[in-house]
Amino acid sequence: MQDKPLVIVISGPSGVGKDATIASMKKSGARFHYVVTATTRVRREGETDGTDYYFLSPTDFENKIRADEFLEYAEVYGNYYGVLKKEVELALNKGEDVIIKVDVQGARTLKKKIPEAVFIFLVPPSIEELAERLTNRNSDSQKDVETRLGKAAEEMKMIEMFDYRVINYRDDLSRTTDLVKAIVKAEKCKVVQRDIKL
Amino acid sequence: MQDKPLVIVISGPSGVGKDATIASMKKSGARFHYVVTATTRVRREGETDGTDYYFLSPTDFENKIRADEFLEYAEVYGNYYGVLKKEVELALNKGEDVIIKVDVQGARTLKKKIPEAVFIFLVPPSIEELAERLTNRNSDSQKDVETRLGKAAEEMKMIEMFDYRVINYRDDLSRTTDLVKAIVKAEKCKVVQRDIKL
Repeated sequence: MQDKPLVIVISGPSGVGKDATIASMKKSGARFHYVVTATTRVRREGETDGTDYYFLSPTDFENKIRADEFLEYAEVYGNYYGVLKKEVELALNKGEDVIIKVDVQGARTLKKKIPEAVFIFLVPPSIEELAERLTNRNSDSQKDVETRLGKAAEEMKMIEMFDYRVINYRDDLSRTTDLVKAIVKAEKCKVVQRDIKL
Repeated sequence: MQDKPLVIVISGPSGVGKDATIASMKKSGARFHYVVTATTRVRREGETDGTDYYFLSPTDFENKIRADEFLEYAEVYGNYYGVLKKEVELALNKGEDVIIKVDVQGARTLKKKIPEAVFIFLVPPSIEELAERLTNRNSDSQKDVETRLGKAAEEMKMIEMFDYRVINYRDDLSRTTDLVKAIVKAEKCKVVQRDIKL
C-alpha cells in the first residue's frame, strides 16, 4: 500500500468520548503514534503525566506559545490545550501514522495548518446522552456541564469541516474503534495520496 | 450513520481475482446486493446461471442492447459482458448497497454514468504473479494469456480513475475482503454523502 504516513485528527464535543476512544485504540493494539496533548488543566484521578497529557504550568505553556512550539493551542474553559509540533514531526519523520486528539476549536486550526490530515468527528447518539455522560463524569460542576452542552450544540454545526463522522455509542466503544480503524485502512488504500506538510 | 445506499464498483485486470474477491465477500456474510453480470461467454465448470453470471445468447444480449437495458456493456475478447440497469435500480430502491464487478473498460463507462459510485481497483502484487494466475486458470489458451497480460499492463495505467486500490495477494483473500469492507465502512462514515442517480 502507501508508504506515506497519515495524520488522523479525532475531534468532537466535550464528553463525547475522545479519550475513551483513544484508550480503546491503544488497547486494541492499533499501531499509531498517539500525540500527547499539553495542557494546564488539573490532572484527573488516574491520569499520568506524559501519557494522558503533558501537564504544564500556565507559565511553561505560555513560554512554549511564545517560542512557537505549538501546532495549535487554545484556551478552553480557562485552561490551555495544545499540540506540540515536535511530537507530530518526530513521528512523521519515522514514517509513523499519527493520531491527534483535539477539541473542535483545535480541529479548526489544524484543518488550516494540515489540510491533508484525515478529520474524524465523534458525535454522541443524542444531546441527552451527552448530558448524562458529562454529569456522570463528576469532574465538572453543573454549571460546567451546561456550558459544555451549549458549546456542543454549536460545535455540531461544524461537522461539514470533517471528512468522516462516527457516532460513539457509550456501550459500544469497540464499534467506534472498529470504524476509526476502517477509516484508516481505507485512507491507506486511496489512489491519490497527499504529502503532509507541517 | 447514513441511509443512502452505496454503489461499489470492483474492477481490475483480467485474472486479478475479482470473482474470488466477490465470492469471499459473500462467504464472509457481508450484506450487499451483488450485481450479476450478463455475458455471452462460455460457462466455466462450477459456474451457475443467475448466480455467477446471466449466461445469454449473443442474440438475446444484442436485443437487450437495443432495448437500452444495460447500464454498461462491452465486448471483451469476443464476448459481451454487461450490467443490467434493472439489477442496480431494484437494489438501490430497496436501500441496499450494491456491488458491481466489471472489467476496467466497464469501470470507465460506469465512472461516467455513476460518478458518485465508489471505485475500487484490484491490482496484482506483480505482473509475474498475474501471468501465473492466468496460466493456471486453464480456461485460456497461451495466446489468450498473452493478450490479457498486454491488456493488464495498459489497464494498470488507468488507476487514476479509481478512488481506492487494493493489492490482491493470491494467498490472502481474507485481507482483500477485509480492506474492501473497511472501504465500505469508511464511505458510510463520510460527512458528505452523495445521491446515486442512474
